[in-house]
Amino acid sequence: METNRLEAFSDGVFAIAITLLILDIKVPPAANLGNELLQLWPSYLAYAISFVVIGAIWINHHAMFDWIDCVDQKLLLLNTLHLMFIAFLPFPTAVLAEALHSGFNQSTAAALYSGTLTVIGVFVTVMWSYASKHPELLNKSITPDRAKMIGRRFLIGPFGYALATILAFVDPWISIALFVVLNAYFLWPRNQGIGPA
Amino acid sequence: METNRLEAFSDGVFAIAITLLILDIKVPPAANLGNELLQLWPSYLAYAISFVVIGAIWINHHAMFDWIDCVDQKLLLLNTLHLMFIAFLPFPTAVLAEALHSGFNQSTAAALYSGTLTVIGVFVTVMWSYASKHPELLNKSITPDRAKMIGRRFLIGPFGYALATILAFVDPWISIALFVVLNAYFLWPRNQGIGPA
Amino acid sequence: METNRLEAFSDGVFAIAITLLILDIKVPPAANLGNELLQLWPSYLAYAISFVVIGAIWINHHAMFDWIDCVDQKLLLLNTLHLMFIAFLPFPTAVLAEALHSGFNQSTAAALYSGTLTVIGVFVTVMWSYASKHPELLNKSITPDRAKMIGRRFLIGPFGYALATILAFVDPWISIALFVVLNAYFLWPRNQGIGPA
Amino acid sequence: METNRLEAFSDGVFAIAITLLILDIKVPPAANLGNELLQLWPSYLAYAISFVVIGAIWINHHAMFDWIDCVDQKLLLLNTLHLMFIAFLPFPTAVLAEALHSGFNQSTAAALYSGTLTVIGVFVTVMWSYASKHPELLNKSITPDRAKMIGRRFLIGPFGYALATILAFVDPWISIALFVVLNAYFLWPRNQGIGPA
Repeated sequence: METNRLEAFSDGVFAIAITLLILDIKVPPAANLGNELLQLWPSYLAYAISFVVIGAIWINHHAMFDWIDCVDQKLLLLNTLHLMFIAFLPFPTAVLAEALHSGFNQSTAAALYSGTLTVIGVFVTVMWSYASKHPELLNKSITPDRAKMIGRRFLIGPFGYALATILAFVDPWISIALFVVLNAYFLWPRNQGIGPA
Repeated sequence: METNRLEAFSDGVFAIAITLLILDIKVPPAANLGNELLQLWPSYLAYAISFVVIGAIWINHHAMFDWIDCVDQKLLLLNTLHLMFIAFLPFPTAVLAEALHSGFNQSTAAALYSGTLTVIGVFVTVMWSYASKHPELLNKSITPDRAKMIGRRFLIGPFGYALATILAFVDPWISIALFVVLNAYFLWPRNQGIGPA
Repeated sequence: METNRLEAFSDGVFAIAITLLILDIKVPPAANLGNELLQLWPSYLAYAISFVVIGAIWINHHAMFDWIDCVDQKLLLLNTLHLMFIAFLPFPTAVLAEALHSGFNQSTAAALYSGTLTVIGVFVTVMWSYASKHPELLNKSITPDRAKMIGRRFLIGPFGYALATILAFVDPWISIALFVVLNAYFLWPRNQGIGPA
Repeated sequence: METNRLEAFSDGVFAIAITLLILDIKVPPAANLGNELLQLWPSYLAYAISFVVIGAIWINHHAMFDWIDCVDQKLLLLNTLHLMFIAFLPFPTAVLAEALHSGFNQSTAAALYSGTLTVIGVFVTVMWSYASKHPELLNKSITPDRAKMIGRRFLIGPFGYALATILAFVDPWISIALFVVLNAYFLWPRNQGIGPA
């Protein structure tokens, strides 16, 4: 399969997952609306974090497939499983918003969220590691050294998110702060092109 | 990143956000259906306004990216944040419909709606202003003077919507009338091609 | 704007509207599931009709834009309003399913459904009539005579659906039967290529 | 109609159906969240199975349309009906999750699920059988013998799923195990390229 077909399908899943996030913000009763809208802040926060997170993963996915010229069955399978966790994100997002709203079990909710991101990061690493062991799939411009360097940068994602998962049980806000910082780092404009996620 | 990739992803978000609007119109009980359907007029009105608004922003987004040939990391980041507010629109749409239906807090709902549009308009202006300061990103056919003129037209959106936000507290219907007029103006067929939004 | 951009965006709206239809079929309680599943037949019927209707309109939309080479602002505006009613279809579909299920107000529900299709058909006719009066927008291969002939075939849609709207008040099932027949006719394979809708 | 148009529309339906699956996993109350999240395992299982199933059908759909160069009206009609059952899958998925959760009527739910997959498999077979009887639609590289061989492999899907439908009444878990095994087989990387579904 050509990579542009796979990319188009993946883009569709990214675009739909990112746009479905809004369905988790329920319309409050119109009586006392101003106050009700303010109390929805956990929903807005969770929406904004997930939108930026999915946006960063999308940018990263493209960067990776700019370096990959061919897709074989194994990479196709890995990518499908990768998308399965991306399309899953609206669920931990809604769970996190609900926990922040009610004040209960915020650690569990933050751990579910960062755990899902950890799995996504692991798939990114596994996909790249598979592709870099099969140079016939890679773009000719990628030397083995460059592939290794890219692979090391991709590791920041799963390790950072795994740390956030553990820290969620210390304090959910430390965990949330960590993935905000990680994504700010991933998205921060720099010359080299991409950040790992 | 090439602009057509960014445009395809953005188009996906636009198309999904515009089509999700219908999910906010809930099926009324079948008993006394004719009357129930008529009483849903605020939902139809909010649906129609948001559909046309998102349609106008989409047309405008294309016009802008016809003049932009390359996208750097900063523009990519700005566009992602821009999309975050476009995908957010189904929420203020539903809040507005609910407020018009119940008769409560219509000013707050209209202000939330036009406030969201103001933020969208600000991002359009910031994106264009960034692009026009980096001529290497622009299409060769755009002279500095033309870029400035386009930038001035893009200002109509955020200023018009900011005015609608303030007027919402005078009378929500004046605010609604203002963004209907603004969008009629943006979409009105004319020779020059696009209207700012 | 090039037509392929407009077609891609329209395709997105068609694909999303057609896939959202399933959200209207609610999961019944698992106790006594077999029976509950059978009683959902109005939902399945409404789903199948709307899926085929949107599919037929999509095929037709493509046929029309194969004959149109350029899009001006007025056609863009007409197409956006056209899409507004297509994206609206999940609502009358759900209303029809609910009315068939409860047995109340089936005529009103069938009239709402066929009324929406009538409006869609009117937009198809207006778009084609506009394009055929502007030969600079049309493909060179379309002679004025051919354009007129196509226009006459496009009239079957709005007239057929308008008749279905009126007949809904005689008997909702006659109305439903009529738009099933109309769509079978539109989709029926034949040499000439397209059926009007 | 060119196949790439049909493929792009079909891809849209696949991408949306696969991403809508997450909407069926409802956010549990935040009190006692850890336990509640664990009890949602039937929803996670149903989500994962359907994601992989739709992914496998998508890969398969592409493989088929790589061998088909032209689409006529009949194939277009068959493909639309095929998509109707793919877009239907979120419903049996949710019914299955609900039945596994409540413990009631698991056989009925598993039969509805595998029955839907059987219908999808029948459409795949019918589409290929139609195409292989019209060599003018096929890619020149496909000899009649190759077409027959592919057709035989496509039969594994409907027969396997029909068996799973019958076995659902013996034990729902045997049925579920069967379609997990079938999809593992379809997706398993091998040299020949595709597995039938």
